[in-house]
Amino acid sequence: MPNTSVSQNVCWYLSGYADGEGSFCVSFSPRSKIRLKLEVRPSFSVSQNGDRSEVLRLFQKTLNCGSIRPDRSDKTYKFETRNLNDLVNKVIPFFRKYTLMSSKSIDFEKFSKICFLLKESKHKSKSGLIEIVKIATSMNTSGKRKYDAQKLFSILR
Amino acid sequence: MPNTSVSQNVCWYLSGYADGEGSFCVSFSPRSKIRLKLEVRPSFSVSQNGDRSEVLRLFQKTLNCGSIRPDRSDKTYKFETRNLNDLVNKVIPFFRKYTLMSSKSIDFEKFSKICFLLKESKHKSKSGLIEIVKIATSMNTSGKRKYDAQKLFSILR
Repeated sequence: MPNTSVSQNVCWYLSGYADGEGSFCVSFSPRSKIRLKLEVRPSFSVSQNGDRSEVLRLFQKTLNCGSIRPDRSDKTYKFETRNLNDLVNKVIPFFRKYTLMSSKSIDFEKFSKICFLLKESKHKSKSGLIEIVKIATSMNTSGKRKYDAQKLFSILR
Repeated sequence: MPNTSVSQNVCWYLSGYADGEGSFCVSFSPRSKIRLKLEVRPSFSVSQNGDRSEVLRLFQKTLNCGSIRPDRSDKTYKFETRNLNDLVNKVIPFFRKYTLMSSKSIDFEKFSKICFLLKESKHKSKSGLIEIVKIATSMNTSGKRKYDAQKLFSILR
């Protein structure tokens, strides 16, 4: 569970911060060794300039999971959690309680849906994996995506 | 005063959002027609992608001031307030109550100090204006500044 000793005010503050600087992401990696050839990797991350990493530590303490590391691509630090159990048991319940107020909440709902499908091992069937790809490729439409839906479906075929 | 009908939760959320995406800025413009040749322009702004401008409307409603407009430099919208009375009576009291938790709070304190100096017309004396320039040029050190302290002092001389 998220850390319950953190005040409600801090939790709402972190929700606002995440609405601006956070990212709910589902990425895919081709993997020759797994049956359906495609690994699904959900993550929640928040970026910040190195000199202001105190908020990232507040995320780590409040969500009681994740790690903080320098982002080599630019001069920022990143808080990130990729562990499915942490996402399902800590991150998603947190944002269910302290809801995002922008349309990023739509991405959060899709992210949440995918995490629960993974938790139920739906990605181990082709139809389940196709559903996950469809949901994921409709997310974060403003960002760039390494593999588009067509490319992912072709790997699955 | 800020709008008091907005819930505490929303206010803390907006504080977090502003800590990530907000900017307390003091800019300067050379003006031949004013006595000390330098105009001081404080502003508080929050940027956001156009498709997620709902949070900007929440800022406008909560702070009960400011305007929202497209930012021509990129595909974003910006909430901004430049009116000194609104900054002193609405924006600053809001962030005194719902405090920023990152080191952006240091910039906020400097911004607040400058707004009160302006409110007391200290910018109308050379010594007051020099103090304002010194504080302002120590702010937002990660961003770019059109005029550095040396350039501003040379205009003042």
